Amino acid sequence: MKLLLLFLLTATALLLAAAPVVYGDEGMWLFNNPPRDYLKKKYDFDATADWLEHVQKSSVRFNSGGSGSFVSPDGLVMTNHHVGADCLQKFGSKEHNYLRDGFHARTRADERKCDDLELNVLMSIEDVTERVKAAVKPDMKPEQAFAARRAVMAEIEKESTDKTGLRSDVITLYQGGQYHLYRFKKYTDVRLVFAPEQQIAFFGGDPDNFEYPRYDLDMCFFRVYENNKPAKIEHYLKWSKAGAKEGELVFVSGHPGRTDRLATLAELDYLRDTGFPFLLQRLNRWEVLLMAFSARSEENARQAKEFLFGVQNSRKARLGGLAALLDPQLMARKKEQEKKFRAKAREDESLKDARGVWDRIAQAQKVRAENIRKYTLLEGGAGFNSELFVIARTLLRAAEEKAKSNSKRLREFRESNLESLELKLFSKAPLYNNYEKVKLTDGLTFLANELGAEHPLVKKVLAGKSPSDRAYELVSGTNIKEVAFRKQLYKGGKEALATAKDPMIELARLADPEARKVRKTMESEFEEVQRQAYAQIAKVKFALEGTNTYPDATFTLRLAFGQVKGYEEQDGKHVPFETTFAGMYKHSAEHHNREPFDLPKRWLDKKDKLNLKTPLNFICTADIIGGNSGSPVINRQAEVVGLIFDGNIQSLALDFAYSDEQARATSVHSAGIVEALRKVYDADELADELTGKNR
Amino acid sequence: MKLLLLFLLTATALLLAAAPVVYGDEGMWLFNNPPRDYLKKKYDFDATADWLEHVQKSSVRFNSGGSGSFVSPDGLVMTNHHVGADCLQKFGSKEHNYLRDGFHARTRADERKCDDLELNVLMSIEDVTERVKAAVKPDMKPEQAFAARRAVMAEIEKESTDKTGLRSDVITLYQGGQYHLYRFKKYTDVRLVFAPEQQIAFFGGDPDNFEYPRYDLDMCFFRVYENNKPAKIEHYLKWSKAGAKEGELVFVSGHPGRTDRLATLAELDYLRDTGFPFLLQRLNRWEVLLMAFSARSEENARQAKEFLFGVQNSRKARLGGLAALLDPQLMARKKEQEKKFRAKAREDESLKDARGVWDRIAQAQKVRAENIRKYTLLEGGAGFNSELFVIARTLLRAAEEKAKSNSKRLREFRESNLESLELKLFSKAPLYNNYEKVKLTDGLTFLANELGAEHPLVKKVLAGKSPSDRAYELVSGTNIKEVAFRKQLYKGGKEALATAKDPMIELARLADPEARKVRKTMESEFEEVQRQAYAQIAKVKFALEGTNTYPDATFTLRLAFGQVKGYEEQDGKHVPFETTFAGMYKHSAEHHNREPFDLPKRWLDKKDKLNLKTPLNFICTADIIGGNSGSPVINRQAEVVGLIFDGNIQSLALDFAYSDEQARATSVHSAGIVEALRKVYDADELADELTGKNR
Repeated sequence: MKLLLLFLLTATALLLAAAPVVYGDEGMWLFNNPPRDYLKKKYDFDATADWLEHVQKSSVRFNSGGSGSFVSPDGLVMTNHHVGADCLQKFGSKEHNYLRDGFHARTRADERKCDDLELNVLMSIEDVTERVKAAVKPDMKPEQAFAARRAVMAEIEKESTDKTGLRSDVITLYQGGQYHLYRFKKYTDVRLVFAPEQQIAFFGGDPDNFEYPRYDLDMCFFRVYENNKPAKIEHYLKWSKAGAKEGELVFVSGHPGRTDRLATLAELDYLRDTGFPFLLQRLNRWEVLLMAFSARSEENARQAKEFLFGVQNSRKARLGGLAALLDPQLMARKKEQEKKFRAKAREDESLKDARGVWDRIAQAQKVRAENIRKYTLLEGGAGFNSELFVIARTLLRAAEEKAKSNSKRLREFRESNLESLELKLFSKAPLYNNYEKVKLTDGLTFLANELGAEHPLVKKVLAGKSPSDRAYELVSGTNIKEVAFRKQLYKGGKEALATAKDPMIELARLADPEARKVRKTMESEFEEVQRQAYAQIAKVKFALEGTNTYPDATFTLRLAFGQVKGYEEQDGKHVPFETTFAGMYKHSAEHHNREPFDLPKRWLDKKDKLNLKTPLNFICTADIIGGNSGSPVINRQAEVVGLIFDGNIQSLALDFAYSDEQARATSVHSAGIVEALRKVYDADELADELTGKNR
Repeated sequence: MKLLLLFLLTATALLLAAAPVVYGDEGMWLFNNPPRDYLKKKYDFDATADWLEHVQKSSVRFNSGGSGSFVSPDGLVMTNHHVGADCLQKFGSKEHNYLRDGFHARTRADERKCDDLELNVLMSIEDVTERVKAAVKPDMKPEQAFAARRAVMAEIEKESTDKTGLRSDVITLYQGGQYHLYRFKKYTDVRLVFAPEQQIAFFGGDPDNFEYPRYDLDMCFFRVYENNKPAKIEHYLKWSKAGAKEGELVFVSGHPGRTDRLATLAELDYLRDTGFPFLLQRLNRWEVLLMAFSARSEENARQAKEFLFGVQNSRKARLGGLAALLDPQLMARKKEQEKKFRAKAREDESLKDARGVWDRIAQAQKVRAENIRKYTLLEGGAGFNSELFVIARTLLRAAEEKAKSNSKRLREFRESNLESLELKLFSKAPLYNNYEKVKLTDGLTFLANELGAEHPLVKKVLAGKSPSDRAYELVSGTNIKEVAFRKQLYKGGKEALATAKDPMIELARLADPEARKVRKTMESEFEEVQRQAYAQIAKVKFALEGTNTYPDATFTLRLAFGQVKGYEEQDGKHVPFETTFAGMYKHSAEHHNREPFDLPKRWLDKKDKLNLKTPLNFICTADIIGGNSGSPVINRQAEVVGLIFDGNIQSLALDFAYSDEQARATSVHSAGIVEALRKVYDADELADELTGKNR
């Protein structure tokens, strides 16, 4: 589920959301504003400050797009296989396919450092709403307002980083209703400890993705190091002896990526008629491209595996979201809600500034719809579709942006973010010429089709050649495949770039003025307008519902909760809350053990050794979404009872509205994890560390 | 290659083409205007009237979208496996997968009748240009002109059918430059004799499609019956003892589907920036849909197999065509050519009517671009994507159109075409509820995305439900799955339809006014305008190049010719003209015998029995395109030396311009066919019939 972040946020700005009156086990709650009363009343559970702090600091964000948690005092981190996959992919070579075959470090010395992985642990939250809002004067034009806000955020972040040494990000909540400063402890020495075969982690493949019942061992373990030693961790989650039980209250602490729960009708219309269809058009295009490329050889398939998984995962998730947007019942609920909000603004004199904002948001959607294709192609990079292009542009822009004062830079080049940016930029992750060429050819073709082959920029970009000839020339000609060369250019700045005349950087230079221009249009005429408007809607929301609510997801730490619970299908069939190893073998047999329903040899050989009644997966009603992948599921004692890895098909509508009728979050069961580690993988040392046997 | 017809022609009108001055072995020649002088001069070959008549009447058109030939006096027809696949797919059931497993009737009694297959043999050609042109008066508006031309064509066809009993079609050549009446003998009792496994017929699958070297046994045999007995055939092709030899002159007699060789620049721009991208968007969408559906179970995969193959085949072909359109060198040649044509029109007073036509064609492209999406969704049916919808609309329109006089009907309902239409409409080919539902859900979603969910027609079509709920309701509720019910409605006409209130027919009724409207717009403002304009361009072409030339492809019989010949890759590597069985086994081993490079068990078992040096595939310079699949390749003596099934990647540009530098047509070698039949399939009786052993 994690890829949502990559495929939607890159092409759009963050959204404000005014949440509905919550009901049932709804909510992706802020750790500084948890639903204590509700938990107390409904579940007789007291979410104490200590409990909250412990869970917060045990939670880990994977900046590659997922969640995780500390599960031992020695820095052991648990997440999903599909979250660790980015690292497994980058380790791979023609000779080694770790994604397919798995990985197991039997000793600490065997643990293998990931190339460009950054983990974040949230240490503190500070409300900086007033300072941010004060920087934007009422008479500023949107463009000025945007720049002023960007400047003050960069300032706050730099001050905080200088003072605390922690990664500091100002997070926009309620899309402008509130601004909180999040400080993270950062880990960049992250080593892979254990991963099973993708075949079992993603058993059932794309057909079973987002389906339930499910049978996936979607787990992966890393260890964070400091000073070349396993980090000593104060807050980590202990292992539950029993694991998840039917009916019990559980919590999910993780990083939901994005929701659009209280987007206005105008924005939902945009998403339904323009945003999602265009995204799906791209995903379809890439899926076909990558499938065709992969079919040509095993080595091609290995190179494209992780990207292909992400594309297929997003495609299925987005189709589910689009289905929700095309569901008249859901849209009727949204209409009702907007009516209520507008009436409140009309009646309440203190909310008079909110009265025109729905129209302003509708107007902003027009700007968005007019610019989204060009924005996605040029600024989002879909018109190039190449890692090498991304590297080239980062080098080009770094030279330009670093020459400016911190407060004037494009946001990703602000001082406090440079370390994270450099980690990515100087990644030693392998790049494959042929693969890059195939993707770049596709990107250039897409660019020509969308803008028209006679568009002046397209003609400049293609330079009198066909897309495939041009891609060949660019990929063969560039030297930025070499990390040392990248470092040299990064250090040398504008002059070094001018001297180098690297063809890929020159390509980025060609496209950059128009890319910056369309970004600026989107920032000032869509993002800023919308942000100011949603800030007003947030006021209406607070006036109607009080402030004990939660904002839309922002890929920052949230607490969700719910019950371990089955559900009824539309035909009345009951779907039980958990599955077992026995069910997995049966599911495989029912599909004649054919891919992707085939099991690794090891699992066939060890079948006799396993307790087949051990639970493998289970579901609960917690409110999650893409980005939550790898989140721990814990009980009242903050013990691990499971590991989130997916949601069922019905959960795909959670992007727009929560429901506990059928929507469920899917987890690996803690008992299944230990049983597999001990009996299938002979990984007793890891199972012991998890369960605290030797502590 | 055959699917081009299905996926491009359905959404556009026929095009005129003015051919360039031919060079080398260029040309898809009319049988009533063959390149006799050129053949005589270059190859010292005399294409006598007898030779031409013999080849013409030995050639067979598969109305499902391919070509074939008679290869025995007892009605045996040779074509490609992928042409026969439509029939194999329709034979299939959950228990039998003939597409995968092949089929072999060892006796005549075992030969199995195809459900809705019509074969055509061209018996005569008559020039009716004057009569058609006379029906259109100079002062008519495009809409009137279109109606008048449609009326006179329907009249001519009906007269001819009444007189001769033959299927009679007026064919538009040079897009309005000429009109010829083609009379076909029709065979509708067509029985399957032999098909190998798809695994060997399409060895290498999508990755090897349109590639060379190649190793496919893409063959299939049918037999036509009359009065329940094998038809006695006067003109059939004898088998060559030697088979294709390097350097020899060969001919291809078949039915190329469509080319755009002399489309104006404005039209090429349209295809490059709008037509091809939109088609590829649809193909990508369907490929992803069908791949995901197929992955869920073997039975799903069986149901979707043939459609999926068609989509993938078209996708690769169209990507090749798009690459040609984005090739500046090709476009420069086109520019040069148009300049010459325009200069001629400017200078030659007798061509003064042609002077404004390039602008008129450019204007017609605007109409086309504005309407193509709606046209494709509503009239082309992409907004429904369901066989059941197609049946429903045919029933609805049949009731309306048959009530009109012959000359006023939509062209497909003209008297002379009704038999062919009924053959399709009353096909017993299986329909699968779940498969139909999945496709219809996709179609309705596509419709909503393209027109916008608030579009009045979309709202009417969805009737307050989500696409998937609506699709479920429609597919479950309709009775037109029953052929008997269809016959009843067809016979009962409007009244029967009104009484039946069948939900799928009511859906078609909802959409039909807008579908007809956009069709009318396209017919009068694009197709008719363009047809009149290209008729003028044809005059310029004849004035410049003489009339010894050929029109663009129209899925009617053409004669191509060329040499059996290898070529040089860009890196200078020589690609030899033929491949062998030994090469096939090697190719499989190099891919670790993994799908789609795995060989059927029979081929592994029989390897020792085979002469591995036997040629399997070969290439030649003949000018072919999609629709030519299944064409016989013959020598000077009109003996079969091969069987066309594909072209190489470079041949995909032939849509726009011929070249013999690298572009090659790919065939199964006649010797490979016989070797496989005798040694692998124990089909001596079939091999004997082909080679005339017992004659």
